[in-house]
Amino acid sequence: MAKICQEVAGERKIPIIPLVQAFDIYRISQEVKIPLWLQHLDWHPQGQYTGWLNLETTLDAGAKGTILNHSEHKLPFGTVRRTIKRIKKTTPQFQVLICCRSLGQAERLVKIEPDFLAYEPPELIGGEISVSEFNATAIAHFVEICEKIPAIIGAGIKNKNDVRIGVRLGAKGILVSSHVVLAKAPKKTLEDLAEGFL
Amino acid sequence: MAKICQEVAGERKIPIIPLVQAFDIYRISQEVKIPLWLQHLDWHPQGQYTGWLNLETTLDAGAKGTILNHSEHKLPFGTVRRTIKRIKKTTPQFQVLICCRSLGQAERLVKIEPDFLAYEPPELIGGEISVSEFNATAIAHFVEICEKIPAIIGAGIKNKNDVRIGVRLGAKGILVSSHVVLAKAPKKTLEDLAEGFL
Repeated sequence: MAKICQEVAGERKIPIIPLVQAFDIYRISQEVKIPLWLQHLDWHPQGQYTGWLNLETTLDAGAKGTILNHSEHKLPFGTVRRTIKRIKKTTPQFQVLICCRSLGQAERLVKIEPDFLAYEPPELIGGEISVSEFNATAIAHFVEICEKIPAIIGAGIKNKNDVRIGVRLGAKGILVSSHVVLAKAPKKTLEDLAEGFL
Repeated sequence: MAKICQEVAGERKIPIIPLVQAFDIYRISQEVKIPLWLQHLDWHPQGQYTGWLNLETTLDAGAKGTILNHSEHKLPFGTVRRTIKRIKKTTPQFQVLICCRSLGQAERLVKIEPDFLAYEPPELIGGEISVSEFNATAIAHFVEICEKIPAIIGAGIKNKNDVRIGVRLGAKGILVSSHVVLAKAPKKTLEDLAEGFL
């Protein structure tokens, strides 16, 4: 899948970042040249913190960034802040995307100043109705909340049309999972999504 | 370090199991033949559980077991039970060691029937006074609580003498970290600890 991302990113000249498990990131980093991000990172430093995903090993394994507060891995606000603070202090080039599931959450999380902020209404995740079709007003509002931070949108995004609506509203990128990884022809789907940005 | 464990295990004919991070386990599994265990596992299955350490990938990466409720990664009782239930149902050969920090906790956790139960009084972890020197009565009681489940002891264990006292009291193994991984001569320390079992 990472190789497919690399091919499409090269062909369409747009950045595509695979989100990878801790188990797999080193191996995948040996196979592709595009940046890889970790699906989740803990705030714990290396050392007496057995069994947590620490930044030091994440960097050694070749990751260039991470997602925090993914809809399937929610974190308390304090944990997100603590993790991002540690990253900014020690490794400011390591990128962080924070997910939020509501505009209220976006307003709170934007203050932590992540590199990217993503909005995914939980009720649309994995579904057939995309966030961009469903609620253009919410996206426009989200883009406003983000100000200078690139606004990413996710949930139900399945084709170039969904992407185009989002881009027109000010979104700078998309978060996508099931519609690509479970697709019969993932490369074709990814190419179609990429076209939405062109 | 895993290679050192393998050498000492081979020379002294005793099992030594390195406890490895998710990031590293696949690579290390390619380098050694002794079993490797993960430092922590989540209960979440593969699929829509982004950013969790799932059993399926753990097995693919070559792990033969895991620790749950490590002193640096405490878990609610229900989470331990849920995780072990899932393992026993799908992969009974995958081994689980549960850590506990008190005898009361041991009494509760032994009912979940892990493959190993470990007792580590938190105040002694990483210190110079070993659990076996400090409280022989507690260890004897812990061994009793374990019944048929192999009793493992940890905290402050630094030489063959500490091991011998524990073994005499009925312990079947030890959990050791800082006294080996931070040792100037880790192999020598490991050989010394191994002698305590002979």
